[in-house]
Amino acid sequence: MSHLHLIAFDADDTLWHNERLYLTAQNRFKTLLARYHSSEWIAERLDQTEMRNLPHFGYGIKSFALSMIETAVELTEGRITGQEIQILIDAAKEMLTAEVQLVERVPETLARLAEKYALMVITKGDLRDQELKIERSGLAQFFSHVEIVSDKKRANYSRVLQQHNLAPEHFAMVGNSLRSDILPVLELGATAIYIPHELTWAHEHADAPTAAPNFYEVAKFDDLPVLFAQLEQK
Amino acid sequence: MSHLHLIAFDADDTLWHNERLYLTAQNRFKTLLARYHSSEWIAERLDQTEMRNLPHFGYGIKSFALSMIETAVELTEGRITGQEIQILIDAAKEMLTAEVQLVERVPETLARLAEKYALMVITKGDLRDQELKIERSGLAQFFSHVEIVSDKKRANYSRVLQQHNLAPEHFAMVGNSLRSDILPVLELGATAIYIPHELTWAHEHADAPTAAPNFYEVAKFDDLPVLFAQLEQK
Repeated sequence: MSHLHLIAFDADDTLWHNERLYLTAQNRFKTLLARYHSSEWIAERLDQTEMRNLPHFGYGIKSFALSMIETAVELTEGRITGQEIQILIDAAKEMLTAEVQLVERVPETLARLAEKYALMVITKGDLRDQELKIERSGLAQFFSHVEIVSDKKRANYSRVLQQHNLAPEHFAMVGNSLRSDILPVLELGATAIYIPHELTWAHEHADAPTAAPNFYEVAKFDDLPVLFAQLEQK
Repeated sequence: MSHLHLIAFDADDTLWHNERLYLTAQNRFKTLLARYHSSEWIAERLDQTEMRNLPHFGYGIKSFALSMIETAVELTEGRITGQEIQILIDAAKEMLTAEVQLVERVPETLARLAEKYALMVITKGDLRDQELKIERSGLAQFFSHVEIVSDKKRANYSRVLQQHNLAPEHFAMVGNSLRSDILPVLELGATAIYIPHELTWAHEHADAPTAAPNFYEVAKFDDLPVLFAQLEQK
């Protein structure tokens, strides 16, 4: 019999595609600055600005937009025009209103898992943006709880488990980021299931903890019911 | 004997000053655009941009910064320079890193109230920004829970009460915004205590529900213990 009671899911690039929105905006950004710099240099400097701003701005599209604008000012030595700045703001608004593109077979798989387990979402980023995406995704019905956190550190997972009065052995986390969804969860002694996404932000990379006892990897979201059935036999 | 078990506090302009940060940034914004437009017109257009962006951007400093930048592009017909845009981004960063200025006698008053009641914070705005302010304020010790919500609608208060398994008659909310802290709470049948702040964002204005049975108003934060003692006698 399974010891798992609650399965939590990361949202961006686990339930729905997200990183592709950032890549599209980044490409637009590179095109905008193409007459000033090489594509590689632009990407490198944007990344540096994002990392420098992260402690104050936090994660999410608005932070990304402010970092794009700041990088554009820096890289053009102030020659960026107002119209070009507006293009960047418009890119952010398009990202915020973009249709939610679900990862393949997510609703059917959640429906199956919901028959046996309590399901929740634990996602980081912007409060408003994540709430709107959950609403628009049509997936809200499957989740008994939604936690939007500013960062996915061990302490935040620990607080969620406490709030739900749940021992780590009854908790599993599913996500595409080794850094945010997997490593802190394994540290707590809970189960972590990694589903790689074709696109993952470099900031989220980490080495896969292949030797860890509670670490599992599946290729696709709809491999989850079979994996959980196997875990029940253990 | 009091029926109140849990007292929740708004944060911005209830526990610490906040609106003055926005006014300082707005003044800087008006100065920057002074050669293009009158101060009144700039303020009016900035407000319009903020209201238009609110459904997607939500509340908080990053949203405000993006709206300032967009308004600057509009009002200068694109002639705003990169350096001027950077001034606006820097203004946002200063707001995010500003020292937390507590409202007078907040820590002593919270310490007294904490002897009798469970205390919590319910604040809206940016997740990361509000977390950092609670951390920097030194007030975290007084609160058993902190809820950061994207908007202070009746449904959000209702969810908080449910999560804490609390009937409305056991709950009181203290805040400076009639629109966000008082009206939705009274609608639920809970107690609401209004403490006017010298500066309150126009968006938060509403008529005081002076005839409502569970509505109270005090002039200063440290009037609260006397008010709660009176409520106990009722």
